[in-house]
Amino acid sequence: MRDVAAAAGVSAMTVSRVVNGEAGVAPGTAARVEAAVRRLGYQRDDVARQLRRAGQLSQIIGLLVDDVAEPFMAAVASAAEDAARQRGSVLLIGSSHDDPGREREVIAAFTARRVDGLILVPVAGSHRFLRPAQARGTKVVCVDRAAPGLDTDTVVVDNFGAVRDAVRHLHAHGHRRIGYLGGRPELWTCGERHRGYRAALSAAGVADEPALVRLGLRTGPEAADAVTRLLAAPDPPTAVVAGNEVLASGALSALPSGVAFVGFDDLALPARPRPPVTVIAQDPAALAAGAARLLFARIHGDTSPPRTVVLPTRLIPRGSGEIPGPHGGGGAEPASE
Amino acid sequence: MRDVAAAAGVSAMTVSRVVNGEAGVAPGTAARVEAAVRRLGYQRDDVARQLRRAGQLSQIIGLLVDDVAEPFMAAVASAAEDAARQRGSVLLIGSSHDDPGREREVIAAFTARRVDGLILVPVAGSHRFLRPAQARGTKVVCVDRAAPGLDTDTVVVDNFGAVRDAVRHLHAHGHRRIGYLGGRPELWTCGERHRGYRAALSAAGVADEPALVRLGLRTGPEAADAVTRLLAAPDPPTAVVAGNEVLASGALSALPSGVAFVGFDDLALPARPRPPVTVIAQDPAALAAGAARLLFARIHGDTSPPRTVVLPTRLIPRGSGEIPGPHGGGGAEPASE
Repeated sequence: MRDVAAAAGVSAMTVSRVVNGEAGVAPGTAARVEAAVRRLGYQRDDVARQLRRAGQLSQIIGLLVDDVAEPFMAAVASAAEDAARQRGSVLLIGSSHDDPGREREVIAAFTARRVDGLILVPVAGSHRFLRPAQARGTKVVCVDRAAPGLDTDTVVVDNFGAVRDAVRHLHAHGHRRIGYLGGRPELWTCGERHRGYRAALSAAGVADEPALVRLGLRTGPEAADAVTRLLAAPDPPTAVVAGNEVLASGALSALPSGVAFVGFDDLALPARPRPPVTVIAQDPAALAAGAARLLFARIHGDTSPPRTVVLPTRLIPRGSGEIPGPHGGGGAEPASE
Repeated sequence: MRDVAAAAGVSAMTVSRVVNGEAGVAPGTAARVEAAVRRLGYQRDDVARQLRRAGQLSQIIGLLVDDVAEPFMAAVASAAEDAARQRGSVLLIGSSHDDPGREREVIAAFTARRVDGLILVPVAGSHRFLRPAQARGTKVVCVDRAAPGLDTDTVVVDNFGAVRDAVRHLHAHGHRRIGYLGGRPELWTCGERHRGYRAALSAAGVADEPALVRLGLRTGPEAADAVTRLLAAPDPPTAVVAGNEVLASGALSALPSGVAFVGFDDLALPARPRPPVTVIAQDPAALAAGAARLLFARIHGDTSPPRTVVLPTRLIPRGSGEIPGPHGGGGAEPASE
């Protein structure tokens, strides 16, 4: 490129502008550069490629998750990578570990590499800090959780409806004392799921007893401990719903047979758990694919107002205590569904 | 930067070279540029940053795994991201899906983004195609599997010793007919593990019966099917060893109680599986951290001969049939250990 610049009597920057069709070069100068390019058989070297990309697409997108080691997040990452690859892009991955400081740090590292866009599983708290990056043209799509205060596309599952339907299912099978294990209420998904629990009880005319609910759980062992305490209380629940996969896996490890159970997600469980476990299944690959679709549309010029896409979940009733049957753990009252 | 170039009467390329301390600029020219930089309060804009990076570090590394959705690979990815972040780098992630064509494609996409280095879980087959990238300065470290024919640092676990010790453990507990479920023999890890199985039998003076071994299994359902067939044979095994986490999870779903079992990896199992499962535990985070350590040493100038680091595994005997006890599934002959 320096040879071309020297031959045309212009700067490397000007050569870059001409070969990339950018504005701001006088027609006579452009003609001189083009002639030099033809004469010298211009090779796009690394620097030229870097220059070309300045102001264009990096074909790099960033994905920020809680922790890519979690099965749900890993499935999101795998599908996001697929989607990026199909569009000629590569995927940077970062984990927030549920820490707003680390989230900002990872996003800053991504934007410093000039990512075209970000797919974000936002941690709790404000995301206004992203607005300058958005103003500079970085596209942002939230996935799995909404980021309140951030005006951006969002792809989530119907968290509210998912837990409401699970509780309704247990109620239909005769359960009246239904426990709930929830994550941190400040996370949008956890709030929605707990809201679904209360809505189902309310619709069924069952009182929402605080003694049956444990919120703010973070780990499997915490969930195991919580379920043990719930069941040791004087009037214990006959069924328990776990509000996410980590809590489900932990609760199951401490759950005696005879207590009905509905878990969230199938991923932290073995391929065919024995005894079978009824779960609310969400599709992490569909979430990621939906987010990627919106993100690449934005990258390629879509300027329509931000959208929120809500994907359905699926209750897979396998008979984990709540349904009497060959696999049922027993303990459920007669089915009334 | 263009202002600096104009003021000093040089090209943008020359300015870049001077501010980045690169060779090839005459002292008088460099002095002129430096004076112009001081005079104009040079701001490193995006293009300057890109130029600066040309020939320097991108602070991007690439990780290629089978599929980041697999628990073991997800744990490797999470630890690799941590290690990269601690060194100011970001991590590109790609999945080969065990397809050599896709592996090459992902690596080409990574090197096109000028990654400083690659951490690679190599698929089966030759990796000579990486030599040109290595010659251009891209550092490569293999993790989890060796890549035969590629002269590069490698971090693996003691796959041979791991399975040998598992079989020895079962033998010590009285088992003489020990089945083995293995992955694709062309994968280096699978070969080593099967070799460990045969070595333990041979050391114990037990014949290696082909009827007790199923190799080339890829999925959980295939492993479930294989274990069902093994156990349906006339003289079935009293114990089964599964050669990786996917096969372990699948086999467990079909394994009747009364058959002893040792799985590979703890990750695809619930936090506290019931009944407990004896496993060969490897530490994916230690693998990734070790690979990152070697990679960044190379990136920062280590030119010593390639090393192979072998990390230990740990047999966690929980009593899955092979040890009579409160949790044992039963069926084992009396312990002789």
